[in-house]
Amino acid sequence: MKGAEALIKTARDAGIDVLFANPGTTEMPVVNALDAVGGMRAILGLQENVVTGAADGYARMTGVPALTLLHLGPGFANGIANLHNARRARTPIVNLIGEHATWHDTPDSPLASDIESLAHPVSGWVGRSTSAEGMPSDLATAVAESQRGAGCIATLILPHDLQIAEGATPAPLVPPHARAVVSGDAVDRARAAIERGDALIFLGNAGVSEAGLKAAGRIAAATDAALMSQMSNARSERGAGLPALTRLPYFPERALAALAPYRTIVLAGAISPVTFFGWPGYASSLVPEGTAVETLAGPDDDVVGALEALAEALGAGPYAPPPTPEKAAVPSGPLVDEGLSATLAALQPEGAIIINEAVTSGWGYHAQSMAAPRFSELQITGGAIGCGPPLALGAALACPDRPVIALQADGSALYTPQALWSQAREGAHVVTLICSNRRYRILQMEMERAGLNQPGPEAGGLTDLARPPVDWPALARGFGVPAETVDTTEALADALGRGLAGEGPYLIEALLA
Amino acid sequence: MKGAEALIKTARDAGIDVLFANPGTTEMPVVNALDAVGGMRAILGLQENVVTGAADGYARMTGVPALTLLHLGPGFANGIANLHNARRARTPIVNLIGEHATWHDTPDSPLASDIESLAHPVSGWVGRSTSAEGMPSDLATAVAESQRGAGCIATLILPHDLQIAEGATPAPLVPPHARAVVSGDAVDRARAAIERGDALIFLGNAGVSEAGLKAAGRIAAATDAALMSQMSNARSERGAGLPALTRLPYFPERALAALAPYRTIVLAGAISPVTFFGWPGYASSLVPEGTAVETLAGPDDDVVGALEALAEALGAGPYAPPPTPEKAAVPSGPLVDEGLSATLAALQPEGAIIINEAVTSGWGYHAQSMAAPRFSELQITGGAIGCGPPLALGAALACPDRPVIALQADGSALYTPQALWSQAREGAHVVTLICSNRRYRILQMEMERAGLNQPGPEAGGLTDLARPPVDWPALARGFGVPAETVDTTEALADALGRGLAGEGPYLIEALLA
Repeated sequence: MKGAEALIKTARDAGIDVLFANPGTTEMPVVNALDAVGGMRAILGLQENVVTGAADGYARMTGVPALTLLHLGPGFANGIANLHNARRARTPIVNLIGEHATWHDTPDSPLASDIESLAHPVSGWVGRSTSAEGMPSDLATAVAESQRGAGCIATLILPHDLQIAEGATPAPLVPPHARAVVSGDAVDRARAAIERGDALIFLGNAGVSEAGLKAAGRIAAATDAALMSQMSNARSERGAGLPALTRLPYFPERALAALAPYRTIVLAGAISPVTFFGWPGYASSLVPEGTAVETLAGPDDDVVGALEALAEALGAGPYAPPPTPEKAAVPSGPLVDEGLSATLAALQPEGAIIINEAVTSGWGYHAQSMAAPRFSELQITGGAIGCGPPLALGAALACPDRPVIALQADGSALYTPQALWSQAREGAHVVTLICSNRRYRILQMEMERAGLNQPGPEAGGLTDLARPPVDWPALARGFGVPAETVDTTEALADALGRGLAGEGPYLIEALLA
Repeated sequence: MKGAEALIKTARDAGIDVLFANPGTTEMPVVNALDAVGGMRAILGLQENVVTGAADGYARMTGVPALTLLHLGPGFANGIANLHNARRARTPIVNLIGEHATWHDTPDSPLASDIESLAHPVSGWVGRSTSAEGMPSDLATAVAESQRGAGCIATLILPHDLQIAEGATPAPLVPPHARAVVSGDAVDRARAAIERGDALIFLGNAGVSEAGLKAAGRIAAATDAALMSQMSNARSERGAGLPALTRLPYFPERALAALAPYRTIVLAGAISPVTFFGWPGYASSLVPEGTAVETLAGPDDDVVGALEALAEALGAGPYAPPPTPEKAAVPSGPLVDEGLSATLAALQPEGAIIINEAVTSGWGYHAQSMAAPRFSELQITGGAIGCGPPLALGAALACPDRPVIALQADGSALYTPQALWSQAREGAHVVTLICSNRRYRILQMEMERAGLNQPGPEAGGLTDLARPPVDWPALARGFGVPAETVDTTEALADALGRGLAGEGPYLIEALLA
């Protein structure tokens, strides 16, 4: 068996049956092995940031490591930004990168580059196969490494000559590293902090899974502890039947105000809160002066086990779902940010997967969607814009029976519009809701914060997307996705209905007033 | 003066007056400095590979270092692929990357990453400012480093707090490193090789500039030496009045056959020829057995000076332009590759800048365009596809009085279609000619070469772009560029006429039979 075939067979044995890919010549043996081995579905992305972002969305929803296939250093480089997001999301991803043959080691070959140097900043593990026989066990190691902690990125480099060499056999799987069980001491300290009063349980990662939230809800019901989640979550379970959490705000003064009431912040799957940028006048840490921090469980620990142990230690009763608040009415009138997100929150169907990459236009959505029927929400986690369209593709492939709705900033979507083509190709049921404000509004807000209320022509031009306006329906149709533009909340509601009633992808440009 | 202002003023003093950018919060002080200092035009790209590719095209045509502004590690990462091409093209580029404030050094901040590790593989020089006062001289150093040899990439990381700190002043310029003058010994050895007979002068970089070609033409006229260029050239001057060169073919058997007749290969700005990939059965070196290699001038040396010295040493007469071959007729009939490129070659106007990123569909173009009126040709140099649309943007900005025509593979254009938006925004006179074969044909050819004539469904799917077909006119209109589809050579000729008669961008989808 060829090295590439034994590698794909090993991946199949590990339960991996989807490959996100944009291959080139150096990956052709792996591509051919897909047909030789069978049982692995290949999803083509027209650009590698679509490939890696879709892998991220897929693995966030399945929990199974997602496999990518990328072409040498430059092909990998195109996918780094969404791997950066995936790294922050702690998504298990295994990247396969084809490399020149071991003997073709001239630095003058056009595509030669230092792949390891590119891979390290986004990878928890980087390996390079040195024999065809070793390639399958290298893959088994990569799969195990991708499951370290809550999940991480493992990158395996595959020289072309080793992919085609004969003599390899599939390798046994490597058991994944067990998540660190939280010590009784940590539970005791968290219990004491909560019993002292005015504690906040700050949740992230598995803390915002269904099991994590139910354990946290038991604690909140039995004590005066409050619940809040990180600003950005890879996947949060939300809506009716689950505790309603506040979320840490973006700007530092609001974040500090939100955290100010608490005597102790108990970390449960979250990291200690830090600012997004180094804003002048604010420290990097968002922990208010006089507030203590207790780590119940770090992001990579057994967060759910820790929260359940804490609930028991506090004598909490069984989980009781909160009363469902009355559903908000569908708003009406001109389309502004709040109306846009309120319309979505009012109409999203049970079981929806919401992709949220609308930083400014989607600010209201978190609070508005408290009363929505049960849903999953996937956010941008690493600040590298352009994750939304590929995340939506990956989530739809992972959960073909659930509608996916992308609440999507226009400037960010313009990083990866090619994902629409893959959505069309795969018949993915994704409704993309473009928040079309035709500007990089977050930058305009940052300029105002910096005291620049009248930006000059160059600064103004660099945040302006209206010259020319992007014709979103044309762009979407170019990639094979039907689309329309709306400019009132009523029309948005109608369009959402059309998109959700279909089976494939649909795009709605919500032209903001 | 703020650090960012003194930095921009220093760049202006160095003759840099265009900034290719996609900034974020950490780059806002540099953005604001554009207006404070004045005289620097900002060009916005919707994704960073557009930014870096446009910078590449701009500097290839002006020779002046091109300046980019990129957002932290992930924003830089998005632009790596086209920087990889620019590195192979030896284009002088200075990248400015905003970084978190020096005091905001938490690794948990969402956008924190190891920027240096990402930058090194594509940069000849990487620096990081450590004070506002030092920032302008860091920029002056970066500009000088970008001009080392024929040109290279210098990357400067700018912490946010240092950009806004006061107390900086513009720095004096750093004289660029002089190009290595070629020794008399090297000229003597090249002369002896040519006098022995059956020599090939293998040209690259400045060897295919007007001055380099004229010197090479003098030598060829005075001796039996043949002229050939590298397969991929950053910028070659071509057409009527200049020597007609052959070009090294892509596939190894053809390249070896093309080089076989020669006793000596004299390198003049080119590297010793190597294969693109490590094809089984072929060595990396394309130098045939028994053929000697003499280096007259390496890519970073004073190639033109060396060729002129060699011409003198050989007693060559003054340059005499070759007779212009009769212009080929405009072909007719169904649109196939040869007809497409022949139509372009027959109709391209004097002074055109041809961007060639059509590897398979454009194979015939080199020979067909020998009789075209004088033009410049910019090729993909590093194998990282998606350079064409941004290169065209940058070249059009550099030379607003010359029409730019992009001979563009469809699969490659789908990497960076956002460049069309910037073309529309800037009113760039670019006619993009999409070679629409709806497949990654080079991969299908590689599969056939590997003996796989009947690829399975997964391998077939990964090279197929017809499911769904991209609607190029819709896509172009989405980005503000008028467009049409043609499917005969006659219609292509008409469409080219329409595109060239206009002033702004235009896109023609040539639907290949």
